[in-house]
Amino acid sequence: MTQFEGSHILSVNQLSLDSLNTIFNVAHKMTPYALREKRTKVLDGAILGNLFFEPSTRTRVSFGCAFNLLGGNVRETVGMAASSLSKGESLYDTARVLSTYSDVIAMRHPESYSVEEFAKGSRVPVINGGDGANEHPTQALLDLFTIQKELVHSGRSIDGAHIALVGDLKYGRTVHSLSRLLCMYKDIHFTLISPSELAMPEYVIADIENAGHKITISHQLEGNLNQADILYLTRIQEERFPSQEEANKYRGKFRLNHSIYTQHCKSNTVIMHPLPRDSRAQANELDNDLNSHPSLAIFRQADNGLLIRMALFALTLGVENQLEKYECPVNWYSRKADR
Amino acid sequence: MTQFEGSHILSVNQLSLDSLNTIFNVAHKMTPYALREKRTKVLDGAILGNLFFEPSTRTRVSFGCAFNLLGGNVRETVGMAASSLSKGESLYDTARVLSTYSDVIAMRHPESYSVEEFAKGSRVPVINGGDGANEHPTQALLDLFTIQKELVHSGRSIDGAHIALVGDLKYGRTVHSLSRLLCMYKDIHFTLISPSELAMPEYVIADIENAGHKITISHQLEGNLNQADILYLTRIQEERFPSQEEANKYRGKFRLNHSIYTQHCKSNTVIMHPLPRDSRAQANELDNDLNSHPSLAIFRQADNGLLIRMALFALTLGVENQLEKYECPVNWYSRKADR
Amino acid sequence: MTQFEGSHILSVNQLSLDSLNTIFNVAHKMTPYALREKRTKVLDGAILGNLFFEPSTRTRVSFGCAFNLLGGNVRETVGMAASSLSKGESLYDTARVLSTYSDVIAMRHPESYSVEEFAKGSRVPVINGGDGANEHPTQALLDLFTIQKELVHSGRSIDGAHIALVGDLKYGRTVHSLSRLLCMYKDIHFTLISPSELAMPEYVIADIENAGHKITISHQLEGNLNQADILYLTRIQEERFPSQEEANKYRGKFRLNHSIYTQHCKSNTVIMHPLPRDSRAQANELDNDLNSHPSLAIFRQADNGLLIRMALFALTLGVENQLEKYECPVNWYSRKADR
Repeated sequence: MTQFEGSHILSVNQLSLDSLNTIFNVAHKMTPYALREKRTKVLDGAILGNLFFEPSTRTRVSFGCAFNLLGGNVRETVGMAASSLSKGESLYDTARVLSTYSDVIAMRHPESYSVEEFAKGSRVPVINGGDGANEHPTQALLDLFTIQKELVHSGRSIDGAHIALVGDLKYGRTVHSLSRLLCMYKDIHFTLISPSELAMPEYVIADIENAGHKITISHQLEGNLNQADILYLTRIQEERFPSQEEANKYRGKFRLNHSIYTQHCKSNTVIMHPLPRDSRAQANELDNDLNSHPSLAIFRQADNGLLIRMALFALTLGVENQLEKYECPVNWYSRKADR
Repeated sequence: MTQFEGSHILSVNQLSLDSLNTIFNVAHKMTPYALREKRTKVLDGAILGNLFFEPSTRTRVSFGCAFNLLGGNVRETVGMAASSLSKGESLYDTARVLSTYSDVIAMRHPESYSVEEFAKGSRVPVINGGDGANEHPTQALLDLFTIQKELVHSGRSIDGAHIALVGDLKYGRTVHSLSRLLCMYKDIHFTLISPSELAMPEYVIADIENAGHKITISHQLEGNLNQADILYLTRIQEERFPSQEEANKYRGKFRLNHSIYTQHCKSNTVIMHPLPRDSRAQANELDNDLNSHPSLAIFRQADNGLLIRMALFALTLGVENQLEKYECPVNWYSRKADR
Repeated sequence: MTQFEGSHILSVNQLSLDSLNTIFNVAHKMTPYALREKRTKVLDGAILGNLFFEPSTRTRVSFGCAFNLLGGNVRETVGMAASSLSKGESLYDTARVLSTYSDVIAMRHPESYSVEEFAKGSRVPVINGGDGANEHPTQALLDLFTIQKELVHSGRSIDGAHIALVGDLKYGRTVHSLSRLLCMYKDIHFTLISPSELAMPEYVIADIENAGHKITISHQLEGNLNQADILYLTRIQEERFPSQEEANKYRGKFRLNHSIYTQHCKSNTVIMHPLPRDSRAQANELDNDLNSHPSLAIFRQADNGLLIRMALFALTLGVENQLEKYECPVNWYSRKADR
């Protein structure tokens, strides 16, 4: 039994390097099930309450399928209007009632700390699927897991890596949580590239410096990427700027496409993005012309989300060592794995 | 085979004292499965059509999970817009088509008697999950089941009990159906407490009197509760009053909190509420400060909903005697039962 | 292994007479499972991604239940707002990500050719559940399958049949796809009955003529039905007409009810309709008074949709010969089959 059994997963702050390794080890064990080489019914009969009080197709379906892949059932709730919350019910009451109906809950909610509040009333483990501007810990975990897998695949490691975070570093909860997790590793060189209006908050920078890592700060993409092992792009929403004139100043400045990549990056610089991306040319974000590039990891990154979520379900429900016991063959046509 | 196999559950009027006992006996048998002490796959492969043409998160999820707990699959439809009903299709057509797709249907709809209408076209059993102002029979059943369990737990019984119904007794379909069911028992003392504008309808009062029970009517909470075994609270919606002045007159008059309870109630007066409640202080409904009181039964009441709905599925599909035959162990972490 | 294993089902154009026969043979094998005489768990553990970017209760539930009937799990997405598509994500990206989460996808989308576009990024088979004005191939297949079953039931066959298509033949994608499939058979007499403003497009008529079939064109129902084997009705939406005056000219002219049927049709003329129908008297479409007529096939037609979709899932996942291997008994109450 690990520390995770029966516990909530609410924040990256509750995770140590040891617990990260535990999660990643279980995530690796999930690979053959996700790839349909075989399947496991370890959670046959268990029920996931998939509560998305804020819609998010990708994350919702990823949680739901992760649970199905372990053999469990999923009961879903999508949207706020459909919920008693709109009638003045407390999150505590909602949690007390809905948690009776399932064995584990994955929850997204538009308000910061709402998932933590809900967890206090829940009788079953709650996994935070994103609570407003606060956290989205499974995204941070899948990002870190991807960084590790991609680097190990080419003989590198997180310790000593050069990681460039690009785009909206001010409002992107993803990069804040990821930075916090990366701080637990050794000798990382962070290159932070953003418009000055959307720079990384001081407290995150302080955390990175206090952990002894190196930071380079820049407001332009070019010239800062030639040593990067990881290039983590995020979307810049123009409405974040004080004026359209400010927004215009930066348009196209943080765009990545095949030509820019070839010119400015090492050939094994891994390209990541939390998705969705706007891949239309005028969006100036991450163009389609890198789609078949072997260093484009954005789809493997999404695939890894499934492994991480399967691992978290297995750990919180304490079945991570019973996977093989409930294995069965896959008797239908199944897709071929990418790399 | 009981009278329920293959039948619809549309109204409390179709239930006799015998059939109530049948339902409650099966509901009791569901307890270990709901508590995850063991599980049953008796409905493995069966399909519930969970049709919520009016949203209701709590009731919808309760039906869905009850079916999952018996091993079955759930296919859901939520909202009217998504439905062909908005294109002028008759409920009969909708029922003929959708009932082919499942083994049993749970249905909520905003219009009175719509579920009955639908049932005429259905080829499978239909359970009424609430049809507008008309009925919500599974709520009445879970309320009655809770009253029985709570009283028996403290050595009392429904026969001879003193039951106070409080709040909006005019528009609350819940209290009407519950009163009808209670009429089948003996020597009950009903205390009906509401604003005069929201008093219990005459026909319900006539039913209670014709069944030989005692009625006390009051317009204030205090002074009427000191002998009550059950205190069943319902929400008063201010828009029910003819004017805001009228509403203001009653604000706070039907509120229950720890201080009022201690002053006016026996220490074993069971507190019930159909939920959701507005537990904010200014709501004047049922405060949070009773949350840990052992007589607060509102969450056990919600839990009982699961047992009642499991029982109704088992009975309408005729598997109530096969539960043990399809039992399996629970191999994952499971929550501890409350009392 | 058939040509279908691992393939997309995007258009009726990809189907030959041989492949139609393959689909229909498998659909026939699905009958005892759909009727609950027995069940099969051949897809136990498989996941359907049921992506309805445009709502359609009937089609969505039909796909979902078809998959459940084969033992599989269903993860659903309904509506556009809930999707990343609204943030400028390409269908290719959406497909790459979401297709990792399931073994097969059924998809409806309001835009023509969107499902084909999506399929290019998908790593699993995609079945078109309707892409705007373009196609709805499973509807065409279930229509053709119904025509065949109904005719064979009364000793007739598609070859040599007289088939009347009635209503909005201009915008009804259903009748276009069905006509294309019927062209593969022999010696069919098509009677095309519509307002002149809503006549069958020239390219469909050319296809029918090039395939050597006979065509009669008319703008009124009466007088053209006395030799019809099949009467396929579709809805006329009044907003299709250039003016309300034009619409008024045709009101009631294409209505079918018991009296009109008895007067103008052979007693074994099979009545079909893709549903939903507006069966209200003022709708002038297809009245309720034929509901118990043995030649009214509209509900059997909907039932056949389940068989066709089960067949397509079995074929694309390559399990059509393993159904019996995973059979189990049905241990709950089950509806009686209609004819």
